[in-house]
Amino acid sequence: MKRREFIQKAALATAAIPAVASASSGKKIRLKMATSWPASMPILQSTADYFAKRVGEMSGGAMEIKIYHAGSLVPPLGVFDAVSAGQIDLYHSATYYWSGKNSAFSVFAGTPFGMVDNEMLAWMRFGGGLELWRELGAKYNVYPLLGGNTGIQMGGWFKKPVEKLADLKGLKMRIPGLGAQILSKLGVNTVMMAGGEIYLALERNVIDASEWVAPALDLSVGFHKVAKYYYTAWHEPASTAEFVFNTKSWAGLPPEYQAIIEVASQDANVRMTAESQARNAPAMRDLLKQGVEVKTFPADVMAACKKALGEVVAEESAKNPDFKKAWESYSSFLEEQKDWTKLGLGRYLETR
Amino acid sequence: MKRREFIQKAALATAAIPAVASASSGKKIRLKMATSWPASMPILQSTADYFAKRVGEMSGGAMEIKIYHAGSLVPPLGVFDAVSAGQIDLYHSATYYWSGKNSAFSVFAGTPFGMVDNEMLAWMRFGGGLELWRELGAKYNVYPLLGGNTGIQMGGWFKKPVEKLADLKGLKMRIPGLGAQILSKLGVNTVMMAGGEIYLALERNVIDASEWVAPALDLSVGFHKVAKYYYTAWHEPASTAEFVFNTKSWAGLPPEYQAIIEVASQDANVRMTAESQARNAPAMRDLLKQGVEVKTFPADVMAACKKALGEVVAEESAKNPDFKKAWESYSSFLEEQKDWTKLGLGRYLETR
Repeated sequence: MKRREFIQKAALATAAIPAVASASSGKKIRLKMATSWPASMPILQSTADYFAKRVGEMSGGAMEIKIYHAGSLVPPLGVFDAVSAGQIDLYHSATYYWSGKNSAFSVFAGTPFGMVDNEMLAWMRFGGGLELWRELGAKYNVYPLLGGNTGIQMGGWFKKPVEKLADLKGLKMRIPGLGAQILSKLGVNTVMMAGGEIYLALERNVIDASEWVAPALDLSVGFHKVAKYYYTAWHEPASTAEFVFNTKSWAGLPPEYQAIIEVASQDANVRMTAESQARNAPAMRDLLKQGVEVKTFPADVMAACKKALGEVVAEESAKNPDFKKAWESYSSFLEEQKDWTKLGLGRYLETR
Repeated sequence: MKRREFIQKAALATAAIPAVASASSGKKIRLKMATSWPASMPILQSTADYFAKRVGEMSGGAMEIKIYHAGSLVPPLGVFDAVSAGQIDLYHSATYYWSGKNSAFSVFAGTPFGMVDNEMLAWMRFGGGLELWRELGAKYNVYPLLGGNTGIQMGGWFKKPVEKLADLKGLKMRIPGLGAQILSKLGVNTVMMAGGEIYLALERNVIDASEWVAPALDLSVGFHKVAKYYYTAWHEPASTAEFVFNTKSWAGLPPEYQAIIEVASQDANVRMTAESQARNAPAMRDLLKQGVEVKTFPADVMAACKKALGEVVAEESAKNPDFKKAWESYSSFLEEQKDWTKLGLGRYLETR
C-alpha cells in the first residue's frame, strides 16, 4: 500500500494539471468528472448529473463539468487513483470503496449501528467531520465534498431466515466494509463481488445472502426473485457519497467557483436523500405485494454484531491512527446525538 | 380577507420594483431581505445569514442581500405583506404564520401526524409539493423557496402531566395552527401569543402549557424553570421555513442568479435541519440533567387528536379549495411514504 501511494504521489508531480488553471485567465472552465455509476442510474448517477447541471447554470455556463460514466474514461473503482494522480479533476463515488486504501474512510462512509443521515450531516457540518475528512483526503491529494447520502440501507436479502446467532455460521454472504468484518467474526463467509454479479450468484446458490442498497435499487436488480427474506437496516444507516477533487484542481478555482461547487455539492447531497426517500417507499410497497417477507435480525444476532463492532474498532484503532482519530470524533458525536434522535424522531414515528 | 388582498394587489401595481431591475444593466444587484427573527438567533436567523453569505460568495459579490432583522424595517409578521406588495424583494420566515391568510399554507408548513423532514423534502422536490406551493404563492404575488426545516419539534411544556383525555378539558395552552384547531375540539382553551410573552404567562399561571420549538431554542428561553413536563412530538414533525420573493423581483433576476438563489435556498434548508440536530441533542441532555421529565401523550389522547385532525381537514377542505388541493397531494404522498419510513428508519432506531 505504502509503495503504491508513493508512486501515485510521484506521478502527480508531473501530471498535467487540468483545465481549471485557465480560470485565472477568465476563460471558460472545463472540468472532467468521472463517476462510478452507469448512465441513467437513479439516486447515484442522477445526483452527479444534477450537480453538473446546477454548476453550469449557476456559473452562467462559465464552468462546465463533463461527465464520464463508469468505465468510459476510468474504471468505476479507479476514480480515486485517477483524481489523486491529477489525471482528471474530480469524481463522484461512494466513500466506503476506499476503506482498503485507508480504513479511516469507512468512518466517513457511515458505520454499522452508526449515525442516521441527519446526525451525519450535523457531524459533517457542525461537528468537525468534514474537516477531519479533508485532512485525511489531503494525504492522498484529494479534497472531498459531500456528494449524497442514501439514508437507510437495508440489511440484505437472505434465502433462508436467520432465526438465531447459530444460523450465521457458514453462511456465504456478499457484503463489504465494516459490516463484512463484523459478520466474519460471527462465522459468516463474507465475499465481495461487483453489483452486476450478485443476482446470478444468488440464483445459482454460489452465495446464500447479499446486501445491496435499499428497496428502489434492489427492486430494479430483482433480488426478490431469488431470495425471499429482506432484512431491516443495521450496517449502513446513512451511506455517504462524495464529490472529490484533485487538490490542485480545487486550489486552482477562483473563490466564487469554489463557493458554487461547495453549495451545489451540499444541495446534491440532500437531493440524493430526498430521491432515495421518494423512490424507496413505493418500491417497498411493490416488493411486499410480490411476497417479500421483511424481517429484523433477532436480538442475539444484533447484540453479537455490536460486540464484534467493538472488537473491529479496537483492532483498526491499534493498526491505524487515522482510523482511531476519525472513530473518536464520529463515535463521541453519535453518543451525544442518539438519545435525542430516539426521543424526538423515534418517539414521533411510534406515535404517528 | 378578500378586500385586503385586493388592496395589496392594487398597491403592488404602483409599488417601486426594487433593485433587481438593475441586473439587466450589468450593475450590482442589491436585494432587501426582511426576516421574522431577531439578530443572532441560532437555527432561524443563522439560516438567513448563511443564505445571504453564500449568495454573495457564489456571485463573486455581484449579488448582495441586505438583511433587515425582525422589526428593523418591517414587523416580524409583516414580511409577507411587504414582499407581496413589492416593498422589499424577499423575506425569511416560517410558513405556518400565513395560515390565517390562506389555510392551505398550513399544509406546506407541515401538519400534525404529518411528514418528517425527509418525507417533506421528497414531496417538495419529487412529489410536486414545491410546484403546488408556488401555485398558491402566485395568488399573493410571491414566489416561495425552501428556507429550512427544523425537523422534529416537541409537543410542548406542561405544568401538570396529561394522563388521560379528560385532563385536556379547560387547559389553557399557547399553540398555533392546526395543532390549536385540534386541541380546541378536545376542550383546550388555545391562545396565541408572541414568543417573548410565553415565559411570563407560564410563570404567572396565565396559561398551563405552551409549545415552542425543540430543546435548543426552548432551553434558551428557560421554559424548564416554570414547567416540568416536556412532551414528545405530534403536531410539528417537520416545520418549514421559507425564503419568499416578490414575483416581479424574482422574474427580474437573470437565470444564473435565479439558479444561485434556488440552490443556496436548498442548501440553507438542510443546513437548518443539521443545525437543529446538532444543537438539540446536547440541549436535551442538559434539560434532563436539570430535572425535566420527558413524557409521551397517552394513546387515547393521540387517538382523539387524530380523529379531530380528520374533522379539521374535512371542514377546511369544504371551505377552501386551495386547502383541499394541497391536503390531497400532501396526504396521499405521506400515505405512500410512511410505511417505508417506519420499516427503514423506525426499525433501525429500535435496533441501534
